[in-house]
Amino acid sequence: MSVYQATTSAPVNIACIKYWGKRNESLILPTNSSLSVTLSQDNLRSTTTARADPSFAADCLWLNGKVDPIKAGGRLHTCISEMKRLRAAFEAANPTQPKIASFNVHICSFNNFPTAAGLASSASGFAALVYALAKLYALPQTPEELSLIARRGSGSACRSLFGGFVAWDMGSDDATGLDSIARQVAPESHWPEMEALICVVNDAKKGTSSTSGMQRTVVTSALLQHRIGSVVPSRMADIESAIADKRFGDFAEITMRDSNQFHAVALDTYPPIFYMNDVSRAIIAIITEYNRLSEQPKAAYTYDAGPNAVIYALTPNVREIAQLILYYFPQAEKVVIGGQEVQAALPEGFNEAVAKRWEVGSVKGLIHTRVGDGPRVLSNSEALLNAQGIPKTLA
Amino acid sequence: MSVYQATTSAPVNIACIKYWGKRNESLILPTNSSLSVTLSQDNLRSTTTARADPSFAADCLWLNGKVDPIKAGGRLHTCISEMKRLRAAFEAANPTQPKIASFNVHICSFNNFPTAAGLASSASGFAALVYALAKLYALPQTPEELSLIARRGSGSACRSLFGGFVAWDMGSDDATGLDSIARQVAPESHWPEMEALICVVNDAKKGTSSTSGMQRTVVTSALLQHRIGSVVPSRMADIESAIADKRFGDFAEITMRDSNQFHAVALDTYPPIFYMNDVSRAIIAIITEYNRLSEQPKAAYTYDAGPNAVIYALTPNVREIAQLILYYFPQAEKVVIGGQEVQAALPEGFNEAVAKRWEVGSVKGLIHTRVGDGPRVLSNSEALLNAQGIPKTLA
Repeated sequence: MSVYQATTSAPVNIACIKYWGKRNESLILPTNSSLSVTLSQDNLRSTTTARADPSFAADCLWLNGKVDPIKAGGRLHTCISEMKRLRAAFEAANPTQPKIASFNVHICSFNNFPTAAGLASSASGFAALVYALAKLYALPQTPEELSLIARRGSGSACRSLFGGFVAWDMGSDDATGLDSIARQVAPESHWPEMEALICVVNDAKKGTSSTSGMQRTVVTSALLQHRIGSVVPSRMADIESAIADKRFGDFAEITMRDSNQFHAVALDTYPPIFYMNDVSRAIIAIITEYNRLSEQPKAAYTYDAGPNAVIYALTPNVREIAQLILYYFPQAEKVVIGGQEVQAALPEGFNEAVAKRWEVGSVKGLIHTRVGDGPRVLSNSEALLNAQGIPKTLA
Repeated sequence: MSVYQATTSAPVNIACIKYWGKRNESLILPTNSSLSVTLSQDNLRSTTTARADPSFAADCLWLNGKVDPIKAGGRLHTCISEMKRLRAAFEAANPTQPKIASFNVHICSFNNFPTAAGLASSASGFAALVYALAKLYALPQTPEELSLIARRGSGSACRSLFGGFVAWDMGSDDATGLDSIARQVAPESHWPEMEALICVVNDAKKGTSSTSGMQRTVVTSALLQHRIGSVVPSRMADIESAIADKRFGDFAEITMRDSNQFHAVALDTYPPIFYMNDVSRAIIAIITEYNRLSEQPKAAYTYDAGPNAVIYALTPNVREIAQLILYYFPQAEKVVIGGQEVQAALPEGFNEAVAKRWEVGSVKGLIHTRVGDGPRVLSNSEALLNAQGIPKTLA
């Protein structure tokens, strides 16, 4: 008897031009276009195995070892149904294909980074899910076409279907959303010197969920509409051009300005939403002072819906930036970059007083990574389901 | 020989619609109108004695016991020159008046609140200065006319020339600034139940000065122009109407929204400006939860260019709010309101988890005050200069 199964992994992406606000909640159509950098799966990834089998009593999904219920009309349900629909169409057009579209599926997904780190896993998770089903179903759809479905799982998941530098065009077809699609602006090979240093920041309390937060911003922020209409379009064009020409200074300035503006509209929400805390602010002050020392910015901070900083920088500057972060945020464990341990140090001329030196644990970890590739097909040896279609961790 | 001397005091004002941005730096013309509540001088005030005497070798000003140099072309110089010009015109029109406009002046000013508290003293200080010179010179100018001169000392000082609720109309005459003037929207007697609780927040580091901060916002924030053109005008009209009708809920919502938006445009500045810290954020979360319990907001937070919270509330609710603040921010010293000590307590139904309980000193003091009157003329017994025109504290 045939086994219909595929295992894939998908990357995390961190936006430079932020997605914040939906114009259509059910189709997940954004109020503005966005752009992100795909981070290497060597460091951060979601892995998913999907199997279709006539013996399965129901669709079932396990996330990090626990059943995640597939609620009717929910986002998981939408993605799985849409993929089954594509398979059914594929079978109709190719009568020799096995009829597996009607089988129930077992899906097992695992993030290699702790949820507690506060790194958004929904983007990589939904991208891996959609990609695993696309491979299971041997679908002919392009990553752009698959991005339409990943988008309906979690907006920013559409951008995790590509490596390198990825735009999500907001589109204008509000009835179908078929032009609200991700596309690759440049592959990872275009600018392989682009690296990222993630500062995992301790947070006492859970912030507002991004789904409810962005709803509230759309309804209450007087500034959001101006951002959408007058700011983002030119920023999108400018950052695409900066990436095309590999102008890091411009890339960095746009990235930092857009992170600031996203948090500004969150703060302009009523009641206000805060994602950054005093540690986040200190990292901004440190990077601002670091950039003051050179003619062009050499580092770009960006913050998503949480206090963690992602700092983009080019290869020659990453060690210096890590030394700087270590100076203000001592680490309990050794930090190694390029095989060499990093020691706390300040660059020549740096004004130490821009921040205080924090206690160990304020930044609870540093993750060094780089721009990376899109979803990968993994071998069967990496499958997360056993021969019976049950998660190996539970068997 | 005659002594020409006057002693006055002037109040602090805290804006509900924030002033942030100048369209003319030298005339101090704002990019938008603003509105404030004048706080009682029984708690917070600047006191100033001004004397004119032919024996004085030069104009001289002491602030809190130290000489504050009067630099040519500086703000102190502008205010003093303008007041001398008004006196000279008054003498020209009234030939029987003593000729004192050409005398040098000694000015001694004192704030009854510690500078370390981080409460802006320039507004009350310049208002007291201008008012003391106006009384010394026996000028016929109205407070509105004097507000034009106080404005040139420090923009928001123009609002401290009135008690109660005060608007500063931005005006449109960019050449002279003569219509950028403060006016009383309602006297303190209109809504005497309006009280304020100031939470003095510990801050590790000095923020960006408001003068340089607002310059940077004007130049770099993409959102500020939208605030100026599309948000503030209707907010000004709405809050004036809420004050006229004593609708506290509306007053509170507009005040909180405008505080949020001021800090949002500060954050949208490049590099970004932060004035609030984690303690400020916690107070916002606490007030937001407190307001959730009632149909209409019963408390309104507002933050100026620093981490201190000013909470406006009506008399019946102030004790409950103080109990709440004490619960999260224990105080080293007793807090007394209306003659009775305040005990930490949470209102019925309050979700305790909106903030953690902080250590003593995070909020280093609470000041309870209320809406108050405009500048006062004080008796000679309260003069800060001795018979020789030297600060009593130095003699």
